[in-house]
Amino acid sequence: MSAKQWNIYLSGEIHSDWRDQIRAGVQALSLPVTFTTPVTDHDASDDCGIEILGPENKAFWKDHKAAGINAIRTRTLIRDADLVVVRFGEQYKQWNAAFDAGFAAALDKPIVTLYPPQHAHALKEIDAAALATAETPGQVVAIIQYVVVG
Amino acid sequence: MSAKQWNIYLSGEIHSDWRDQIRAGVQALSLPVTFTTPVTDHDASDDCGIEILGPENKAFWKDHKAAGINAIRTRTLIRDADLVVVRFGEQYKQWNAAFDAGFAAALDKPIVTLYPPQHAHALKEIDAAALATAETPGQVVAIIQYVVVG
Amino acid sequence: MSAKQWNIYLSGEIHSDWRDQIRAGVQALSLPVTFTTPVTDHDASDDCGIEILGPENKAFWKDHKAAGINAIRTRTLIRDADLVVVRFGEQYKQWNAAFDAGFAAALDKPIVTLYPPQHAHALKEIDAAALATAETPGQVVAIIQYVVVG
Amino acid sequence: MSAKQWNIYLSGEIHSDWRDQIRAGVQALSLPVTFTTPVTDHDASDDCGIEILGPENKAFWKDHKAAGINAIRTRTLIRDADLVVVRFGEQYKQWNAAFDAGFAAALDKPIVTLYPPQHAHALKEIDAAALATAETPGQVVAIIQYVVVG
Amino acid sequence: MSAKQWNIYLSGEIHSDWRDQIRAGVQALSLPVTFTTPVTDHDASDDCGIEILGPENKAFWKDHKAAGINAIRTRTLIRDADLVVVRFGEQYKQWNAAFDAGFAAALDKPIVTLYPPQHAHALKEIDAAALATAETPGQVVAIIQYVVVG
Amino acid sequence: MSAKQWNIYLSGEIHSDWRDQIRAGVQALSLPVTFTTPVTDHDASDDCGIEILGPENKAFWKDHKAAGINAIRTRTLIRDADLVVVRFGEQYKQWNAAFDAGFAAALDKPIVTLYPPQHAHALKEIDAAALATAETPGQVVAIIQYVVVG
Amino acid sequence: MSAKQWNIYLSGEIHSDWRDQIRAGVQALSLPVTFTTPVTDHDASDDCGIEILGPENKAFWKDHKAAGINAIRTRTLIRDADLVVVRFGEQYKQWNAAFDAGFAAALDKPIVTLYPPQHAHALKEIDAAALATAETPGQVVAIIQYVVVG
Amino acid sequence: MSAKQWNIYLSGEIHSDWRDQIRAGVQALSLPVTFTTPVTDHDASDDCGIEILGPENKAFWKDHKAAGINAIRTRTLIRDADLVVVRFGEQYKQWNAAFDAGFAAALDKPIVTLYPPQHAHALKEIDAAALATAETPGQVVAIIQYVVVG
Repeated sequence: MSAKQWNIYLSGEIHSDWRDQIRAGVQALSLPVTFTTPVTDHDASDDCGIEILGPENKAFWKDHKAAGINAIRTRTLIRDADLVVVRFGEQYKQWNAAFDAGFAAALDKPIVTLYPPQHAHALKEIDAAALATAETPGQVVAIIQYVVVG
Repeated sequence: MSAKQWNIYLSGEIHSDWRDQIRAGVQALSLPVTFTTPVTDHDASDDCGIEILGPENKAFWKDHKAAGINAIRTRTLIRDADLVVVRFGEQYKQWNAAFDAGFAAALDKPIVTLYPPQHAHALKEIDAAALATAETPGQVVAIIQYVVVG
Repeated sequence: MSAKQWNIYLSGEIHSDWRDQIRAGVQALSLPVTFTTPVTDHDASDDCGIEILGPENKAFWKDHKAAGINAIRTRTLIRDADLVVVRFGEQYKQWNAAFDAGFAAALDKPIVTLYPPQHAHALKEIDAAALATAETPGQVVAIIQYVVVG
Repeated sequence: MSAKQWNIYLSGEIHSDWRDQIRAGVQALSLPVTFTTPVTDHDASDDCGIEILGPENKAFWKDHKAAGINAIRTRTLIRDADLVVVRFGEQYKQWNAAFDAGFAAALDKPIVTLYPPQHAHALKEIDAAALATAETPGQVVAIIQYVVVG
Repeated sequence: MSAKQWNIYLSGEIHSDWRDQIRAGVQALSLPVTFTTPVTDHDASDDCGIEILGPENKAFWKDHKAAGINAIRTRTLIRDADLVVVRFGEQYKQWNAAFDAGFAAALDKPIVTLYPPQHAHALKEIDAAALATAETPGQVVAIIQYVVVG
Repeated sequence: MSAKQWNIYLSGEIHSDWRDQIRAGVQALSLPVTFTTPVTDHDASDDCGIEILGPENKAFWKDHKAAGINAIRTRTLIRDADLVVVRFGEQYKQWNAAFDAGFAAALDKPIVTLYPPQHAHALKEIDAAALATAETPGQVVAIIQYVVVG
Repeated sequence: MSAKQWNIYLSGEIHSDWRDQIRAGVQALSLPVTFTTPVTDHDASDDCGIEILGPENKAFWKDHKAAGINAIRTRTLIRDADLVVVRFGEQYKQWNAAFDAGFAAALDKPIVTLYPPQHAHALKEIDAAALATAETPGQVVAIIQYVVVG
Repeated sequence: MSAKQWNIYLSGEIHSDWRDQIRAGVQALSLPVTFTTPVTDHDASDDCGIEILGPENKAFWKDHKAAGINAIRTRTLIRDADLVVVRFGEQYKQWNAAFDAGFAAALDKPIVTLYPPQHAHALKEIDAAALATAETPGQVVAIIQYVVVG
């Protein structure tokens, strides 16, 4: 009776090491979890469209080509996920994180939000679709531990 | 052979009159369109939870109760919509707009984004899920006219 | 631009007049709402199977035939609903109310729970799937008013 | 030609050893079955929200945080299940068990109910959505054996 | 608050007047029900393929063309239905009736079976997917009355 | 007991009057049918993107913007349709017609193909997903008549 | 790059050795196929309800209990299947086979029918939902070989 | 933490070695990808119906039988795919490729189109449903590499 392998998608902020913290915490507990993520190399994520498919004069279409390729990865991995953790950092618009949350919500994926407390009011609609709201990666690890092993 | 009545949900920014402009433009063309929107009274939207269901000591739960009640309206109307227009204004985080876009995308709803050009890079993931990107309410009216009457 | 007609299913307790209170409150506000309900005549609901399809020796099959016929109505109306209000009264097991809540949740129907506060702990799993929790029919009317007219 | 591994979710009562009896019975038969369950440690299940995410003054929000985290586990495992066994014990409201049954029913999961005969009338709506109704864990084992190996 | 108009599909046997009996019974009660049916003219149903689309040498392809055209109607109307009544008569294979029942079951449509008692054993799998089993058109009328008006 | 209003989407070739023939034939029979179509003005369909949303230097992006706007209309109307008629004319690639057929097939929409016989071999995969294959608009009218009125 | 393992459900007649012929043929070709079936022991299939869950006075309820338990197996395996082969033999009503075909059709499962030619007219509706119609187990093996290995 | 194995379906043109180029490129990178394809032997694909199921006098039915059998394979593999690459070559109608694209689009499968630039205008509707448009197999390999390993 092998344990279920959980697929957990880590969406959002790419400027801090929150994913590493969660991975390390879960690895230390030897939990049966596979993490997936968007491409977290910012330049690669911005430039993949023109690097692979050729240059564009307009920034809009450069972005469009990149976003399409990234969406192949992100939408597939969100659809595969058992749980989606959405992280909002201190800076930037981070609309893709909120988009992922909406996408996951409509697919009935359990969502955990992770952000510093000052964002709480601005994220209230997303929290209403989440099953837990955490402030630290350690709390997310504890949620995963609880959910996976009871 | 009566024409189809189109349901169009107008998501996002509540601080400018973009919805009125679209409504007026479409009304002037006598198109068979019903618009729906979130509650656009900011204070009502923030306070509905505690006003209806009683006070909370913590801002988080005040927000949570409000967001739940608003979600009854917004998720239902997005599910009913033939088209979702998502507006991002100049200010604020507007994560609920991005959430709505992701929610609509996963439900296979056609999406039109509407925002000032400086947001283009930050919205590239959402534009990748949209079928059109407009800068002005007038362009949205023109899209609706084209889509509804050809 | 006619307003959306909301379908609201009123599930649960049949021993108090909470449905009448909600109907009256909504009617006083002239809201575009159609309410649907299970059959609320307790004896009819228990006996419809044997009355229509013939007697049974065992109570289990009497109940089974009745429950099947009631399910034709209740599942159809829940599937049709924009919003499901689930009422738990002071007495009885009311497992059918909890079943309806689970059924509605898996169908992504917005849920409002309505019950006296002493049930809160026992209903926590259902509240986690609800978008609002009310204590009085008046609060439900206020939620409907807010959701329907903003 | 490897045999299908069946996923069976054991929902409901946590105060008797019915899950152990079913597990032992199935293990004795060496059937290819993986069982999943909610967290069955009552205190852990009640307290996980505040233990992981911090204290609450109100019992309602303490429960809400716990129920959200538990739902990450339970909804995921029910979605993964080939069969859902729902147990109602002698005591308590057990509304979460009935909720799980409704949730499973709307997802078209086969359901087996398991309860002492005195509950039959109160559970008739749930039985109408179940494919079998058992009184003992041994009967559930026999159903699993029949279903899995013929 | 207008009543719901129920769509009821009457599938199966075309050699007796059971549909007329149900229609007449429901009409006498002035219930808000719209009935739909397959084409019940046996020759038209068999010949529509070659009459509209040209002759075939092989009976198999004559049948195939007819069955395709009939399926446009039947599958659409079953998908539209709130309730599917499936009638098995005394004669013939009536595999299309059983097919309709399976089709309706997988779409989560409530099913009522209607047949003379000698068929009960052969129809046990279909009855397991039905919410009621009737022997007479009058019983079906009574079920509709109960379901529609309570 | 009002008759069902059928929504029929007429996809494909825009260079002959086949849609007019079907409309006229159905109108002469006074059938309860609403037809929907893509925008059939070829230039409007090609230019709508740049006319509404501004010019592009590259033909690819001009086309992309137009195709997105057209997709708002076409995907919505196909999703609304009870029946999709897909016409292939004598000329051009007509890949959008084949795309519509695939889109409709995956949505379980009944499909009727309409084309001159020389295309039969090249369209065999699409015919395998269609419920009827016609050569003339008159045959399509006859199918509609049969399907709608029996 | 491991080959896909195909799940094929063999529905229908239990009185001849057609399943063994297909299994043997596929095994001789060493194809990556897992076959699943209903319980094919006629008596076990009829009696499982009362043997596991206790006796019934009425044949109808004996059958009902058996059919429910069998449905746990059959519906799960059909949902798991990549391909459903439905066999109609020379005798009996075989309504469960036709039900399975309808169930599979509504779930968009590819269907192959298998029957002696004299049944062709009576099975035309089911053939209209099938992707191939075979007369012999050997033809089914050849279809599987073609589909799996090209 | 094993990497996800990606299923990629390679649809369309069968007259050039584009599939081999993609396979070779991906193999050189040792990516965890399983490719699936339609049967690419043109004669086998055309003749499988009559070879397995017997001759037909009319070319239409010969094609129909072949197309049905091919559809068992192609629809199943598209449903299984994480990504669908659709190739349009220089010649022929290639309506099946466009059909596959529409089928994949309605199933929310990410699509990459691959074709020589002269087809761009004719494929604009399909590109509007694609997340990337490539001109060479090498570009597709680069997209796969980026999507799979970041």
